[in-house]
Amino acid sequence: MSKRYVAVCGASEATPSQLDAAREVGRLLARSGAIVVNGGYAGVSGAASEGAAAEGGTVVGILREATREGSNPHLTVALPTGFGEARNLLIVMAAESVIAIGRGWGTLSEIALARRLDRPVFALDTWDVDGLEVVKTPVEAVRRALEAN
Amino acid sequence: MSKRYVAVCGASEATPSQLDAAREVGRLLARSGAIVVNGGYAGVSGAASEGAAAEGGTVVGILREATREGSNPHLTVALPTGFGEARNLLIVMAAESVIAIGRGWGTLSEIALARRLDRPVFALDTWDVDGLEVVKTPVEAVRRALEAN
Amino acid sequence: MSKRYVAVCGASEATPSQLDAAREVGRLLARSGAIVVNGGYAGVSGAASEGAAAEGGTVVGILREATREGSNPHLTVALPTGFGEARNLLIVMAAESVIAIGRGWGTLSEIALARRLDRPVFALDTWDVDGLEVVKTPVEAVRRALEAN
Amino acid sequence: MSKRYVAVCGASEATPSQLDAAREVGRLLARSGAIVVNGGYAGVSGAASEGAAAEGGTVVGILREATREGSNPHLTVALPTGFGEARNLLIVMAAESVIAIGRGWGTLSEIALARRLDRPVFALDTWDVDGLEVVKTPVEAVRRALEAN
Repeated sequence: MSKRYVAVCGASEATPSQLDAAREVGRLLARSGAIVVNGGYAGVSGAASEGAAAEGGTVVGILREATREGSNPHLTVALPTGFGEARNLLIVMAAESVIAIGRGWGTLSEIALARRLDRPVFALDTWDVDGLEVVKTPVEAVRRALEAN
Repeated sequence: MSKRYVAVCGASEATPSQLDAAREVGRLLARSGAIVVNGGYAGVSGAASEGAAAEGGTVVGILREATREGSNPHLTVALPTGFGEARNLLIVMAAESVIAIGRGWGTLSEIALARRLDRPVFALDTWDVDGLEVVKTPVEAVRRALEAN
Repeated sequence: MSKRYVAVCGASEATPSQLDAAREVGRLLARSGAIVVNGGYAGVSGAASEGAAAEGGTVVGILREATREGSNPHLTVALPTGFGEARNLLIVMAAESVIAIGRGWGTLSEIALARRLDRPVFALDTWDVDGLEVVKTPVEAVRRALEAN
Repeated sequence: MSKRYVAVCGASEATPSQLDAAREVGRLLARSGAIVVNGGYAGVSGAASEGAAAEGGTVVGILREATREGSNPHLTVALPTGFGEARNLLIVMAAESVIAIGRGWGTLSEIALARRLDRPVFALDTWDVDGLEVVKTPVEAVRRALEAN
């Protein structure tokens, strides 16, 4: 079976419960063998990376900046781009499905770009816009994100 | 005084009243001497381009594809990018303020990217998300977009 | 007849004779009605822009940075990208043919990307690599660049 | 010690001896623990990926297209971009040093972009341009690429 890629998108500033959810999503994706893609810094990306790394998963951070400075320490592969917010498209392009946690304009741009590219978006305590699959728990988010691939 | 750049963002499929609004926005921006930036194809971009061109304005279309095929005939400058939806960032990056008309995931991505870059977004019959400046008419949209520069 | 787009590529640090050539190329392209595309800063881009603007031509600068700061004052349209050197691809993508003047790694990347995209490159005192059309004068460069469209 | 990233750049059409060299470079980089970055398709990228994968190394392919179709089967992580040749910048941006093998315009663009970004380029039977570090063997290329980090 080919590898599954799932993006975990969310803001760098998140609530404790959003960070807990991101960590749990990372753990569950890694256990299932999926590759986790995210923005590579702190906040939701950092927590998802931490969870995935704790389970020995592969985590790819696609960074906004042209260097690796400030990226979280849990990434298997850290890719500086120097593309600023255009890297948001790369994150969702690399993913077959997207789990969005928390708010922030960057997160909303990833949600919109993912939907524009026809990737399903599983929404866990995030922006309330039509066209997303609202889920209640990390377990449900991961199960449905993997089924969607 | 240096030139002002205003992006007009909106879906390729739009209602007649949205197209009328886009055309009027284009006309008013051109009369004020602003450079109009948009996605360069039909729909809201096409109507805004048509309006601006009718007033002798400068219109820049930043195209999704690697060729100029399918771009509207009203563009002063048509720029193929081959970057797909990443060109949405280029549109808002080039603008000091953004007028959003109508819906569509591409439009929502432009709204979110614009706000992420701290550009004010003037919302004329578009997505209902917090953080936008809701306006009622093309006149109000253009007046406020120009004041915001 | 549709508009012709010609890129003028060259280093920010150029010799006086390279700058003279760039200025003359800009003038000749503008007189022929072609749209000049370049990197938008000083050096070869600045001189080509100055020449084209002096003849009332349209000049598009596709900037490396996310702001217009440092762009030359002769641009009809200045487009900040924030894409760094990836904007080099946008410059050659927008052009049907390329005139390269002077050296510099950025210029070589534009030459290579242009050839990769099958754009003819007219080489006026630039890198000596196989596969370019070597020309001797601005007049010859412009004549052949326009014929190639 | 933090991970080292080395790009292996080369054409999709390569001679048997270039492919052998790429395979050996991949093997040696993986044995040293470096992460190999390349364009992800066949030719030099495919051979370098094959060599690295045979030694259990981590290989990242940054793809030109918007899907994974046509990517080689040896990649640990395959990243579709849809950015066309702009992904060449991402390959060299991700690398601390670059090993170039064989010719092709894409390869020359990567060489030029790498030098523009001040990455050392180790040249193994590739374009003959000033400013590269010419090496004779895969062993020398890898040794010097790793020392350069």
